[in-house]
Parts: sequence; C-alpha cells; structure tokens
Amino acid sequence: MSETDTDIQDAPGVAESELDEDDRLKPEFVRAVLDAVQNGDDEAARALVEPLHPADIADLFELASHEERRDLARAVTDLLDGDVFAEMNDYVREDLIDALEPHQVADIAAELDTDDAVAIIEDMEEEDQRAVLRALDPDDRAAIEEALSYPEESAGRLMQRELIAVPEHWTVGHVLDYLRGNEDLTTDFWEIFVVDPAHKPIGTCELSWILRTPRGVSLSDVMKREQTLIPVEMDQEEVALRFQKYALISAAVVDASGRLVGMITVDDVVHIISEEAGEDALLLSGAGDGDINEPVLDSYKARVRWLIANLGTALVAATIISMFEGTISRMVTLAALMPIVAGVGGNAGTQTMAVTVRALATNQLTDSNSMRTIRREILVALLNGSTIAVVLGCAVALVFQNPALGGVIAAAMMTNILIAGLAGVIVPLTMDRFNADPAVASSIFVTMTTDSMGFLVFLGLATAAGLTA
Amino acid sequence: MSETDTDIQDAPGVAESELDEDDRLKPEFVRAVLDAVQNGDDEAARALVEPLHPADIADLFELASHEERRDLARAVTDLLDGDVFAEMNDYVREDLIDALEPHQVADIAAELDTDDAVAIIEDMEEEDQRAVLRALDPDDRAAIEEALSYPEESAGRLMQRELIAVPEHWTVGHVLDYLRGNEDLTTDFWEIFVVDPAHKPIGTCELSWILRTPRGVSLSDVMKREQTLIPVEMDQEEVALRFQKYALISAAVVDASGRLVGMITVDDVVHIISEEAGEDALLLSGAGDGDINEPVLDSYKARVRWLIANLGTALVAATIISMFEGTISRMVTLAALMPIVAGVGGNAGTQTMAVTVRALATNQLTDSNSMRTIRREILVALLNGSTIAVVLGCAVALVFQNPALGGVIAAAMMTNILIAGLAGVIVPLTMDRFNADPAVASSIFVTMTTDSMGFLVFLGLATAAGLTA
Repeated sequence: MSETDTDIQDAPGVAESELDEDDRLKPEFVRAVLDAVQNGDDEAARALVEPLHPADIADLFELASHEERRDLARAVTDLLDGDVFAEMNDYVREDLIDALEPHQVADIAAELDTDDAVAIIEDMEEEDQRAVLRALDPDDRAAIEEALSYPEESAGRLMQRELIAVPEHWTVGHVLDYLRGNEDLTTDFWEIFVVDPAHKPIGTCELSWILRTPRGVSLSDVMKREQTLIPVEMDQEEVALRFQKYALISAAVVDASGRLVGMITVDDVVHIISEEAGEDALLLSGAGDGDINEPVLDSYKARVRWLIANLGTALVAATIISMFEGTISRMVTLAALMPIVAGVGGNAGTQTMAVTVRALATNQLTDSNSMRTIRREILVALLNGSTIAVVLGCAVALVFQNPALGGVIAAAMMTNILIAGLAGVIVPLTMDRFNADPAVASSIFVTMTTDSMGFLVFLGLATAAGLTA
Repeated sequence: MSETDTDIQDAPGVAESELDEDDRLKPEFVRAVLDAVQNGDDEAARALVEPLHPADIADLFELASHEERRDLARAVTDLLDGDVFAEMNDYVREDLIDALEPHQVADIAAELDTDDAVAIIEDMEEEDQRAVLRALDPDDRAAIEEALSYPEESAGRLMQRELIAVPEHWTVGHVLDYLRGNEDLTTDFWEIFVVDPAHKPIGTCELSWILRTPRGVSLSDVMKREQTLIPVEMDQEEVALRFQKYALISAAVVDASGRLVGMITVDDVVHIISEEAGEDALLLSGAGDGDINEPVLDSYKARVRWLIANLGTALVAATIISMFEGTISRMVTLAALMPIVAGVGGNAGTQTMAVTVRALATNQLTDSNSMRTIRREILVALLNGSTIAVVLGCAVALVFQNPALGGVIAAAMMTNILIAGLAGVIVPLTMDRFNADPAVASSIFVTMTTDSMGFLVFLGLATAAGLTA
C-alpha cells in the first residue's frame, strides 16, 4: 500500500525478467538465486528474491531441492513471511517448517489469518504443535485451537474468524463509521454480514452496494436476505462445489446452532477446486496424492498397493487364458492377437469411466439422469465397437488369409467394447451409490472386466469355432 | 435485494426439500417438475421451479432429456433469465438456444454482463448470431461485437466491460459521491481501478480499503500500485492459473497499448480452473471433451479416433509377440503370463504419467526441477519394481514349480516397471517441451512402450533362457 512499492507484475509488452510466459520462474533465475546461496552470497540472493511476489517466492522453494531449500531459507529468512508459507506446496512447507524453531513458526503464524495459520500448524507433530501454540499470544492461540478442534478438511479449518458482522438496525453511515473507527478490523473481506442479537446471520451486503448507497439508508433495506451458509463441519470438497455452483466470493460459516463463527473467501477455495478436480486423473491411475514433492517412500507405498491389486486382477486374466492353452497351442497366432481385444477394450472402458467419474464429481450425473447416461454410453459403445470390429476383423482376415479368424476377433472386439462401455459407466455409478469415491477403485474393476472378458470371449469363440493353424 | 425475498438457501439443520446433502436436485423433485410439464400443468411446474436459485434451474435443465428440456423451457419461459443461461452446461445451453427465436436470445443477452452474453452468443450459427446482434440495442451490440473480435477462449471473451475506473487525483469522497450519484454503474465489482489520463491502469483499490478510509484521503495514498494485469489476448487457461497463483478476486484487462478495456472476476474463472484441472483425466483416456451432455456422434468421433490409434499400438505389440510364436508353442504358459508383465507395467507407467501431467499443468514441474523429478521417478520405479518382481517371481516359481520361469518373469517385470517409470515422466516432459499438451497424447506412447517392452523383454528372456514346458 505504500508509495514506494514498485510495479513488480508484468504489464503487456514489458517482459518480466524472472518469469516466463506461463508465469513460471525461469530456470536461469532459479539457478542464479541458488548459486548465490551456495556461494555464501546471501546479499545477492536476497536482492534477487526480494522483488518477487509471495507466490513466486513459494514457487522458488518448491523448485529447489531438499538440501538447497534449507540454505535458501537461512539466506532469505526475513523474506519468508506468512504469505509465502500460505502459498507453498504442503510437502515443501512441512519440509521447511521442520527446520524452524517453534517460536519462529509462531511468529509466522501470528501474522496470518486463522485459516492460513491452521494450514501451517495442522500438519506438525503434536509436540511441536503444542510448542508453537504456547508461543502464540492468547487470542491467536484460542482461535487456532478452536479451528484445530474441527475435523480435518472441514469448513472449520478453512474459515477465517476475522470478519465484519453488524446488527440489522444499523444504517450505511453506521457501517462506514465503524469501519473507519476501528483500526484492528480485518481488511480482507468482500461482504459484510448482518446478524441478529443471537449472532445468527440474517443477511449479507456486498461492499459495492454499501459504497453505492447513501449514509442514511438502513442495512435492512440493502441487504440480501437469501444467502448461502456453510455449516462448520462441511467437507471442504462440498464447500468448493458450493462456491463454484453459486459463484460465491465469500460465505458465512455457521455452527450447529446457526451462529456465525467464521467466513470463507473464494481465494481459499480456488486451490481446493483445482485440487479436487485434478485429483481424478491421479486417483484413477492409483497414484495417490501424486505430488512430485511427496517423499519417495510415501509415493512408493501409495503406488505399490495399487500395483499389487492390479497384479491380482492380472492373475485372474492369466487364469482365464490358461484355461484355453489347448486352443492356443493349436493356433499360436491367437496369443499374439488376444492382447488387442483386451487392450482396446480396456481403453474404451477407461474413456467411459473418465467421463462418468468427471460427471459424478461435478454433480452433473445424478439419479435423475443415470439411466439416460447408461443408454447414451451403450450407444457410443455400439458405434465405437462396430467401427473397431470392422477395421480389425477385415485386417486380420486379410493378413492371415483366414475369414473365420477375422470373424472371431471382430465379434470378440465388438462384445468387449460393449462390456467396457457398460462397466465404465456402471462401476463408478455403483461406487457412488455406496458413497465410495468412484475415482478411487473404479479402474481396478473396469480393467479386470475388460481384460478377463476380452480373453474369455476371444479365446472362447476361437475354441467354439474350432480354429486351428 | 427486496424484503420479500425468502431464504431459499439451506441453513444447517433446516433440510431443503429440493436439494440433497450434496446440493444436487433430488430425483423426486426433478420428476415432479417434469411430470407436471408433461401433464400440461405449467402452473404447478412454475410454482416448483420459481423458488430455485438460477444455478439450480440450470441444473434442472441439464438433468432433463433433450425432449423434456424444450417442453420445460416453454412452461417456465419467464423464469429462464440470463443468470440461468450463464450457469448452464454449454451443450444444454446450445440445445435450448437453438429452440429460441433470435429476439428472445437478444432479450436474454441484454440482461447480462458482456462475458455471459458472449458465452451465449459465441456458439451460435453465424446467421443466428447476426440476427441476435441486430436485435440488441447499439451499446450492447458494440460491446458484444468487440468481445467476439477477440480469439475464442481468450481473456477478451471472458472479461466484462462494466467496471469502475477513476482518476488518480480523486479522494475517497469523490469515489463515494461518484458511485452514489450514477445509477447505471455496475454493482458487480470488487475493486476500483485507478487510471491515468490515457486510461492506463496505475493502481487498484480493494473496496474494503475505501470503506475503511476517511473521505478526504487521496486515492493515490490508498491504492496498491502493484497489480496483476491480464493482456486481452491471453488464453483463458493462463488467466485461470494467474488468478489461482496470485489469489485474485478481480483483475484489470488491458489491450496491446496498455489501456484498460475490461475486468475479469474470479467467479468467471472458477469454472475454468475446475474444467482445466478436470480435463486431464479425460484427455489422458482419450475421451475428448468428455461431457455427458455432448451429442452422441461428437463423443463417438472423439473417442473412436483414440481407439484406432490404440489399435495401432496394439498391433505393434501383437507383431512383437508373433516374433516369439516358436517360444510360445514350446511353452504355452508364457501366453498366459505375458499380459501380466505388460499390464502391471502399463499401470506403473500410467501412475507416473498422471503425476507428471498434473505437475506440469499446475506449473510445479519446470526445467528447474525436471532432472530431479526424473531421478525421483526412477527411484520410485526401482522400489515398486523390486516389490512386484519378488512377489510375482516367487508366486510363479512356486505355482509352476519352475524357478527359471519365476526368474524370467521377475526380471522382465522389474525391467518393464523401470521402463514404465522412465516413459511416464519423459514422454509428458518431451511433449511439454515441444509445446504440445502432455495430457493429450502421452498415454498412447506410454502404453505402447510398456506393452511392447513388456512382451519383448519377457518373451525375449524366456527364449534366451531356453524355457520349455
């Protein structure tokens, strides 16, 4: 806010030396900072880092390696404020926080709104957490302890307690005088909540309305009485969906008795919207959290479980194949062709599954249109199946000069793509019906189905047709 | 804003009859509305729909089938305002807009901010578009025509032209008088832009600062001079990343000469953040747009291309297998076991690829840390590979009472998981380096690699080891 601030953001046509066209820090710049730190030239490092936005300083720490991070933190300690930590990747933050003394963490937490302070403290070991809380002043401590009493990933953890709440009988003039006269009120708010004497929200005023309304007008005449309230126990994913659905900038958080206890602003939710939307690809592949900053052993544990589950489903498929060893030994070409039927079927299943999981995650697919969606996917599968079956059947018939083999593989391909389409939509729908996250385990079942059925139908038909070389 | 509004949002403990716990319309409610429409009881349908939030009315249309949608639109035409269309899924909106007369579309567009009006008009056929533009009043028409002159999916399409811009020499009092005295200014703004005489932005004031500052203070003393500007040609995905990175609520849009031409607010960007983050799972599977409301033929076209590409990669794998038909005929069990090596390897590759694609999409993976990330993924692959190889090798050796077979499959599994890890990180990194979207085609290459190498290494080792039944 001071006049000495310089324009550090890029204006069009003015190339920013530190950032590339995607707002990422340039590798040369990152290298220059880390080299300065390594050469003990803290002054040079600080000079480079100081003009950066907190979000870019956070990125810088993410791009440094584990060892470089701590040296960098030592070199630019005074620039490492709460805003930087609030913007930092969870794993990188934990890594850095581990290296700090509790009183240093407390100093950082004290600067922040409750939600950002909680994000820093909630992942610490219990003992360190207690040490940090002891080092905070009583007000901050009480606020953070209350936030920590709410479930992880709930609205209570996400909300800030700093907000503006005023009584209904006030006028716009009262509000202006109150805001101007109280130095210690938050500046981080986008609407004002109107509450009744029991501190229950009864309306909300966007700041633009207050600015556009004469002083004498009563709040009860400008406030909007319909507002979206967030229960303090609500899961953050639902909070994010609600912000998205109703295009909210901020929302009041209420406790079980309906009293206003906090406020969530959209900037705290944007990260969650992005994370929740992006995690489907990771969950479908069984990559767990899938963060490149996650410790290697955690990644290993998350992924190997999935690979072992997959090994199990592969064994089912192998067992099915082994039932047809007689058929294969009479015509070894079947062994070369059978992975095509399983593989393309698996792919068709993955497509349908990705679409279904996404539609479920965005609340576009509900009981009201699930039958219609199943019919739609069957139709797409029939079209895809016919196309692929014709192409593959003709190619095989021609290459092997064996129309029967072409017919068998075409029929098997058609069947498996249809099965894949059905499994791809029904498996996630069923998981969702039983309140399981459809992104988590659907692909295990879908792949098992398309693999097993692909081999079974193809080798079964080949056996029935009495194919031999 | 009127006092007769009733509280239509859910308060904790107060069950909303129309919405389930996830803010989705209940199937019974949807059915009741559609039944009323079908029975010609438009009055009853309107009574049910009227209390809904525009976002929920939009959902209702999405949940109805193509045929039901038009009847529903006819029944509740007066409730179908611009806000409802702005919240609606693109395909459903197109479907409905097709059924409306140009002057009806013009009436709806006239109510909206430029960005929402453009979203409705941009997908229309050129002829219909011209008819709608003709039906608009000249000011609205000029604004929309200018927006349409910017590239699709650019900031220029996304921005609204309605904003508050004031000169630097004004005081807070000037701003308040200006806002109170001009009825036709927008109410949808979260910050005020300070501009120089050439209309170039030089600073920004959050509304909360203006509210907290006495009338006599000059804007140049409260405004923040560092601000994030959005070039009007910037791609919407980059706009979304910038909003997310710098936690913006709104941002000024500037043209090539640096003049302020519009404003983007976070509620317009939240949908894009969610879409861009969610599309990776769809793109990785080759499901195209992957919207359940997309016309069946469009879905077919998008998906079948991918399946045909996959058929091509499956043929490569089949060719490799066919080179080993002699080995397989000496030991048919190999045919049953080989899909395990290819399948689990494919899965390991997909995991690494999903992590890499996500890290690239969120700008967490850049040239600064790509070598480190590759080393990290090799380490994870070595751990996963050893675990799976030991489990699988022992199981095969025991089941088939054939230690040599166990050794061969263990070695092949280890090799393929390592290859999968390398391909999973290097393929997306390479695509990104060549400015191709790594989510779009990576999985074709990764799957081809893990399939082909899985079969090649396993059957190759079996041949070298001289395995026979």
